[in-house]
Amino acid sequence: MTFHQKLNAAWQEQDSLLMVGIDPDLDRMPTPLKHEGDQLWHFCRGIIDATAPYVCGFKPQIAYFASIGAESVLQTVCDYIREHYPKLALVLDAKRGDIGSTAEHYAREVFERYQADAVTISPYMGMDSALPYLARRDKGVIVLCRTSNAGGADLQSLEVAGRPLYLHVADMVANKWNEHGQCGLVVGATFEKELEAVRRCVGDDLPLLVPGIGAQGGDIGKTCLAGCNSQGSGMMINSSRAILYAGSQDDWAQKAAEAAKQTRDAINAARAPLKA
Amino acid sequence: MTFHQKLNAAWQEQDSLLMVGIDPDLDRMPTPLKHEGDQLWHFCRGIIDATAPYVCGFKPQIAYFASIGAESVLQTVCDYIREHYPKLALVLDAKRGDIGSTAEHYAREVFERYQADAVTISPYMGMDSALPYLARRDKGVIVLCRTSNAGGADLQSLEVAGRPLYLHVADMVANKWNEHGQCGLVVGATFEKELEAVRRCVGDDLPLLVPGIGAQGGDIGKTCLAGCNSQGSGMMINSSRAILYAGSQDDWAQKAAEAAKQTRDAINAARAPLKA
Repeated sequence: MTFHQKLNAAWQEQDSLLMVGIDPDLDRMPTPLKHEGDQLWHFCRGIIDATAPYVCGFKPQIAYFASIGAESVLQTVCDYIREHYPKLALVLDAKRGDIGSTAEHYAREVFERYQADAVTISPYMGMDSALPYLARRDKGVIVLCRTSNAGGADLQSLEVAGRPLYLHVADMVANKWNEHGQCGLVVGATFEKELEAVRRCVGDDLPLLVPGIGAQGGDIGKTCLAGCNSQGSGMMINSSRAILYAGSQDDWAQKAAEAAKQTRDAINAARAPLKA
Repeated sequence: MTFHQKLNAAWQEQDSLLMVGIDPDLDRMPTPLKHEGDQLWHFCRGIIDATAPYVCGFKPQIAYFASIGAESVLQTVCDYIREHYPKLALVLDAKRGDIGSTAEHYAREVFERYQADAVTISPYMGMDSALPYLARRDKGVIVLCRTSNAGGADLQSLEVAGRPLYLHVADMVANKWNEHGQCGLVVGATFEKELEAVRRCVGDDLPLLVPGIGAQGGDIGKTCLAGCNSQGSGMMINSSRAILYAGSQDDWAQKAAEAAKQTRDAINAARAPLKA
């Protein structure tokens, strides 16, 4: 089963476009976990179990583990998701970008060590830098396109042959890199006109990973109108902090579940007219 | 002491622009180490000790450690370089690119966990994605500009307002991101005309990290002519595989030392006329 097939099945069976970002920050652990030895793992497992009913997948962010030398916890998190929720998409957010044998080693990191279904990468080094990931035909390769931060415009909005660079990237990925139907694009919810332009450029089949709702302020209704495909689907709409830190007391997991359910429901309400 | 001051001192005191990339591949370990339990560490330490007399610094590539779960070895390698060769520059090649709190976690990884002097990052997400690194004023931030792979042209050579994107990046980094004199650029030795254009664009003071000689085929003489500043300096010319795997038998460390000395000497011969 390829990443795209798995993701499509998860969208349908879970009736959810919500993806929960696993970005565990030790400074923001719930009070009851603060003095536990393996609080990072307890927190991640609690969030995964609480929110799994409401999501199409999980997106662990490697930086939060790497900053504190907790790669073994990330490995446990990935193992746990694959074992307990095998139908949910597992996207490793790593934004890797390198060439040749170095890129091959990054591909081994994400697909052999962590055994993720998909990875995020940067387009800056060009198509040959993506080949080691694309060589794993069952895996997903999600390329940065228009990121959710204001500074993303510094490069991504530069005009290239009459259109912004991010649309050139969208076109290039959809029509060259995606030969075997493995690619997706990262497009922020914070710029819905750009999101709409990317969807128009790439058509219905390319999945978009959309950060920027929740803590970053992107609007769910506008995001669905702009980014859904003609079946009212096609996005992994990511939320991290707004769900992970919805509560800080004994009911932190319950609060996370409620926040995930509310977000999924808001997404589904916004896309309902598009599915008709 | 800032990264730039440390690098300038290393260039002078070592009389070398050569940087050795620490990219240890388990498949290419010297025969005598193949059956040792901690061959990765023995190999790295052997390479560091053998080549240290001939280099301005070392550039460990994190992917080679991450692919096999050997972050603890990378930590030991960085500790060893700082302790035994405190005057040499320690650049962590990570090509990171992310925003906000995630970028802050990557900055902690490189500057607190590994305590490198500088890091490589991607420009694609814009200036705000570089701020967590730039906030460490004594640290170096080396931004991808024109990479050494052919596919680099896919994005980097696109025309933006009459010049290629990589020159726009060079200009932006030199004149906006470099407010506190911390920045450098990655420019491949495999495209010497582009290297020359970048040097002309950024002036004398911005250090260039130049991969692509050795295994990738870049010419040392042309590289020095194209990329040196007006003092015949200003580059970290990186070689990895051609030095690391110069020998595979009992004399592997000696062979690496000879390859490093020869490369340093070839660089110095090529830049001698420029220093006059």
